[in-house]
Amino acid sequence: MPAFSRLVRFLAKNGKTYYGDAILPEGVTDIAKTKKARVIKGDIFGKHEVTDQVADVRLLLAPLALEDVKTVRCLGLNYALHAKEYKPVTSLSGPTDPIPIHPIAQEELGLDYEVELVVIIGKEAKDVPESEALDYVLGYAVGNDVSHRDWQVARGGGQWSLGKGFDGWAPYGPGIATSNVIKDPQTLKISTRVNGQTVQESNTADQIFNVSQTIAFLSRGHTLLPGDLIWTGTPSGVGMGRKPQLWLKDGDIVEVELEGVGIVSNKVEFIKEDSAKL
Amino acid sequence: MPAFSRLVRFLAKNGKTYYGDAILPEGVTDIAKTKKARVIKGDIFGKHEVTDQVADVRLLLAPLALEDVKTVRCLGLNYALHAKEYKPVTSLSGPTDPIPIHPIAQEELGLDYEVELVVIIGKEAKDVPESEALDYVLGYAVGNDVSHRDWQVARGGGQWSLGKGFDGWAPYGPGIATSNVIKDPQTLKISTRVNGQTVQESNTADQIFNVSQTIAFLSRGHTLLPGDLIWTGTPSGVGMGRKPQLWLKDGDIVEVELEGVGIVSNKVEFIKEDSAKL
Repeated sequence: MPAFSRLVRFLAKNGKTYYGDAILPEGVTDIAKTKKARVIKGDIFGKHEVTDQVADVRLLLAPLALEDVKTVRCLGLNYALHAKEYKPVTSLSGPTDPIPIHPIAQEELGLDYEVELVVIIGKEAKDVPESEALDYVLGYAVGNDVSHRDWQVARGGGQWSLGKGFDGWAPYGPGIATSNVIKDPQTLKISTRVNGQTVQESNTADQIFNVSQTIAFLSRGHTLLPGDLIWTGTPSGVGMGRKPQLWLKDGDIVEVELEGVGIVSNKVEFIKEDSAKL
Repeated sequence: MPAFSRLVRFLAKNGKTYYGDAILPEGVTDIAKTKKARVIKGDIFGKHEVTDQVADVRLLLAPLALEDVKTVRCLGLNYALHAKEYKPVTSLSGPTDPIPIHPIAQEELGLDYEVELVVIIGKEAKDVPESEALDYVLGYAVGNDVSHRDWQVARGGGQWSLGKGFDGWAPYGPGIATSNVIKDPQTLKISTRVNGQTVQESNTADQIFNVSQTIAFLSRGHTLLPGDLIWTGTPSGVGMGRKPQLWLKDGDIVEVELEGVGIVSNKVEFIKEDSAKL
């Protein structure tokens, strides 16, 4: 068990970046509302301590530093089909970062959202039985698995990952609600809003494969490492499946929300060729 | 340009693990034959120095330490089709390690080999033009992208990666021949032998997408990081495509070879349920 309840990584008002344990007002569970946090010293996956030092949060960052993430695994559409893919760590971004749309992904319609429960592995796991699987979980976040359906489907099937792995196409957070506060990950409301309109609305109880089954399945012959992320698939309501279809446009605000964790809110930002080079 | 020509990571006779610059007899280019190496101090992707300290090599290891690898990208079948996937870093292993076959992958026929030219990225790259792409390469290795065709194809398409991502299913090495010794990666003989019989034999000149094109393609909207590996696909001759089909069995010795780099030789080892848990 980690010593913290809600892990946040943040830029503090003093200009430094810390891991911290979020301090939230009584009754508030949306980690995005964190204004202060107790600074954590040490290895969040190993020996660490929640100190008495309270820092003022200027900006919440992606919950794990890039160097603390190893493999990012994704279930394609857990609520329907048990497929499996990987994403590059460079696709990860923070809970309020813009989603940069590279010129090659702007050409046609097809830009879509997928709200997902993200599981963060806390200790090395291999061939783990379902009954013990949750012991290997550090906690949970919510993520938006941004996808381009044209790249993913029309341009040849095998390019599935290219349509999901662009820099900044996997914002997640707003922090990590640990097993100390989420005892059962299969009871959580999960939803997406585009410019305020609800487009996905479900409950993790409806996952075909629950988190325990997923960890047991993925760890067969595969070592899961501390800092691995598992994106557990999305419920119905994605833009591709709607009538009429709903594609994201430049300037849209996409919010994904998971009960007990909070809200990740990002603006879609079409970028110019020049700034793509920066 | 790195200060070293042939990077090896090795267990030395003194029991320590080092990065080193291989010392090979005149005319020998197979890095697997390295008996001594000059120890490298510092960051192999940044400031480093090839020291005068010469160490005796007991065992060559996977050329990069797991913590030095970020994303592992694979082109499905470059010599035929430009698909793209990722592998977990935990699938990587060393040039003489056994290939462990987990009980769930032993059930049916379908275990296959794929020799591949592996490109190691040396510095951060994004939206790189073809003409500059090789400037971002640290060097080249040869790898065996072990695959289970049953998992990959029959069990539902989307599980492509599961059939390739098992622990230890991506042996590579024997070291990294840097751009100092391989000026042109498109002129290299590449081959596979199973128990001494040649089953794949081609030349990187036959790649449909050359290394420069591949880096340019993959870096569009995606930041490639130092330590990223690109497995560039395999030529014809894989077991699935042979008549009759040729599947790997327990105890088989698979050797993959790349001119100017050397030989990676691994024994297929079916493991018991119990040892799978270790």
